[in-house]
Amino acid sequence: MDKKLAELIGKDKVSTDIGDRLCFSKDVTPLCYKWIDLYKLPPYVSDIIASPETTEDVIKIVNFARENNKKLFIYGGGSGVVGGVIPTESGITLDMTRMSGIINLDEESLTVEVQSGIIGQNLEDFLNKKNYTLRHFPQSIRSASVGGLIATKSTGQFSTKYGGIENYVVGLEAVLPDGSLLNTGDKPRSSTGPDINNFFIGSEGVFGVITKAILKIYKMPEEVKYHCFIYSDIFRALDSIREIMQSGIKPPVIRLYNSEESRLKFEKLGFDYDGCLLILCFEGKKELVEAESSVAKKICSGMHARDIGEELGKIWFENRFDTRHILEKEEEYGGMSDAIELAASWSKIKKLYTEVEEYFKKRNITLASHFSHVYTSGVSVYNIFYLNAGDEKEAIDRFYQIWDDVMEIALKNEATISHHHGIGIIKKTRLKQELGKGMELIKKLKDNLDPENIINPEKLIEN
Amino acid sequence: MDKKLAELIGKDKVSTDIGDRLCFSKDVTPLCYKWIDLYKLPPYVSDIIASPETTEDVIKIVNFARENNKKLFIYGGGSGVVGGVIPTESGITLDMTRMSGIINLDEESLTVEVQSGIIGQNLEDFLNKKNYTLRHFPQSIRSASVGGLIATKSTGQFSTKYGGIENYVVGLEAVLPDGSLLNTGDKPRSSTGPDINNFFIGSEGVFGVITKAILKIYKMPEEVKYHCFIYSDIFRALDSIREIMQSGIKPPVIRLYNSEESRLKFEKLGFDYDGCLLILCFEGKKELVEAESSVAKKICSGMHARDIGEELGKIWFENRFDTRHILEKEEEYGGMSDAIELAASWSKIKKLYTEVEEYFKKRNITLASHFSHVYTSGVSVYNIFYLNAGDEKEAIDRFYQIWDDVMEIALKNEATISHHHGIGIIKKTRLKQELGKGMELIKKLKDNLDPENIINPEKLIEN
Repeated sequence: MDKKLAELIGKDKVSTDIGDRLCFSKDVTPLCYKWIDLYKLPPYVSDIIASPETTEDVIKIVNFARENNKKLFIYGGGSGVVGGVIPTESGITLDMTRMSGIINLDEESLTVEVQSGIIGQNLEDFLNKKNYTLRHFPQSIRSASVGGLIATKSTGQFSTKYGGIENYVVGLEAVLPDGSLLNTGDKPRSSTGPDINNFFIGSEGVFGVITKAILKIYKMPEEVKYHCFIYSDIFRALDSIREIMQSGIKPPVIRLYNSEESRLKFEKLGFDYDGCLLILCFEGKKELVEAESSVAKKICSGMHARDIGEELGKIWFENRFDTRHILEKEEEYGGMSDAIELAASWSKIKKLYTEVEEYFKKRNITLASHFSHVYTSGVSVYNIFYLNAGDEKEAIDRFYQIWDDVMEIALKNEATISHHHGIGIIKKTRLKQELGKGMELIKKLKDNLDPENIINPEKLIEN
Repeated sequence: MDKKLAELIGKDKVSTDIGDRLCFSKDVTPLCYKWIDLYKLPPYVSDIIASPETTEDVIKIVNFARENNKKLFIYGGGSGVVGGVIPTESGITLDMTRMSGIINLDEESLTVEVQSGIIGQNLEDFLNKKNYTLRHFPQSIRSASVGGLIATKSTGQFSTKYGGIENYVVGLEAVLPDGSLLNTGDKPRSSTGPDINNFFIGSEGVFGVITKAILKIYKMPEEVKYHCFIYSDIFRALDSIREIMQSGIKPPVIRLYNSEESRLKFEKLGFDYDGCLLILCFEGKKELVEAESSVAKKICSGMHARDIGEELGKIWFENRFDTRHILEKEEEYGGMSDAIELAASWSKIKKLYTEVEEYFKKRNITLASHFSHVYTSGVSVYNIFYLNAGDEKEAIDRFYQIWDDVMEIALKNEATISHHHGIGIIKKTRLKQELGKGMELIKKLKDNLDPENIINPEKLIEN
């Protein structure tokens, strides 16, 4: 089988080496590490790793898989935390990492066209050299591919001004399950039927393989300023960030930590503060930075927040990709940790937050939460839990139980079970409950596009 | 047939009156008036007008149509300009005008839930009384329904800050062709598969009947300011508005008229100016208005624009829904007029504009154009042409020819054939060329959702 594929696309693009097969059958889902600790293997390991370099290679591989009735899994950067790349049966894994080219920088339209396998940080570095920036900063930027960011509907630390990946995608190219090629161009907006880009954003690969993308870029901001506040009460702080977003300004960063996560932060950095930390960032033209920070400061002061200046904001920015403290804390608590990122409208978020907090409190599980993606109509809450378990087996069982319980709390409160991590294998059990009839629409499209269920079977769709 | 339907939903909700049938079989497409002049009838007239008051009524009507193999057309406010509501064969028309209720105003989340038949201006009036505003101001706001705005992917005069209707829809309810009910809730954002709302935004009714929507609303801006400039050169003016959008500020209104449309405006209003008029509006918190207008003014002055203050902006705002001058001009030129709204990326817009201008110049047809929806990556151009024709029959033939030619120019330049009017019956011939494989995705979903092709047959999809 692998030899036939090698004949088609070239020997150096096909591997059956066990190291490669293992490497491309896992991502950084916490559960993945536990599986490996326990069983030394992820649940399924791909038989063949195919590493295309061009769209034509991808077409050949998709056709090969379909014609030979082999399942096809897609691996972008392997930075997912919910198991989106993990094979659910035997098959071929498409390793997209070699498709990392930058095709076109359109400096007039401020867009860049790339192959989908390019790593976020590599694209950012390329842009920075020309004084541009993507401003899409997911925690995973150093390992996530652009295709993966699109397929999982990623968002970034500067989302409050620039939006999620859905606000970046101007156009894309995708290989459909029948081997045909879709291309949506670079139109800024159109009313020519439902937006086809949005069929693929968040699709987790089930409708085809994203091979190229045209993304918006930005000029480097003239000025960047931080400002931090401390609140004694998390709900008053929540009211403040709601007020900020609803006032019509767009600070790129609004990060509010609850008292537990603030305490961990203050402790780690050696600050003697107490309460809930709010980090704000303003950027752009000098006049805009001044105006927006003035509006925001007035709102925070009006809510009796303590103004602690810019220092902690700058420290956050410098260390924002450093997750060592989570791993250290995880060891300290002796088990495993994970993050459950929910989101709800403003009128539902406080009840959701309270119920999630109570859930963990009752079970004596440490929970650190922050609110970091803020909208006029609602907000996301990022819940990091540190689970203490007797042994690995118990850890896995408790882990699944917690996920299921928290998703149930979310659904009961009409919140989403996933704000930006995607569904993968971790959240699939509850997806249908959230989407309702929407699941049927996705399934109907999948059934017609991929009748043999070749590409990413078992992902996203309830069969 | 109509009696069976009357039994199901009530006698007062069903009509076969010829006046009603005519009324709900047309919209304000210029061609529609010509058809009526010529033939006294729109091309098809619905047999039955069904006027639901509740979602349950809609479900009954959809089931009735499917079970009796009758086609179902959807009429929102009848404000469309491309024939989206015009029946393409005999059948039932769903008159959504009675579904005009306001269901819930969520003042914390700044959202409003409405039945889809509510007219935009009625919703705006309701909101204004409570010091809120939609800020979605399509030209058709006084007659368009919210459902129609969503189904055609509308945009509004304040789009540069608030976006198109796709940036407003938080959630929606729709009756699918099988009579089942879809509801997407009020989550601010989620990564739970492709966004289901986007399946319906721009769908022109082919996937089902939108019955409710949850839309973002805004607080009334603290301050609104206008500022106008005149450019001697349209391309330098285009460079300015690109620079403004790419500088990171968000003036809600950026309207740039070419010299011909500016001339008509100056003439009508009694101003002795010459050149291309640019109207800018800034709104929101006082600090923001000051900062944004300062940034924009610097950019315009740097491009040698003549600063003419705020007056013309205020006049535009007061008269922005008045289209009498177009109708007067139409009479003056002795034929018919229409608007073709295209959009392209910045790197493609100047060539597109030049080719469209040359096309009309060669044929001695008056063209007035403006650029009024501006993005960081591109811009839309609104081309109003005044067609002079010998008789009605000739007018219709020339009209079709112009549309086809201009769409061909757009497609050749990788522009979209529709920025915000939708496809309807006027642009359908060229849609597949623009969407390519995307058309297949829409068709595959339609085939599976509505296998008997009951709802809005012949719309959007190439059969």
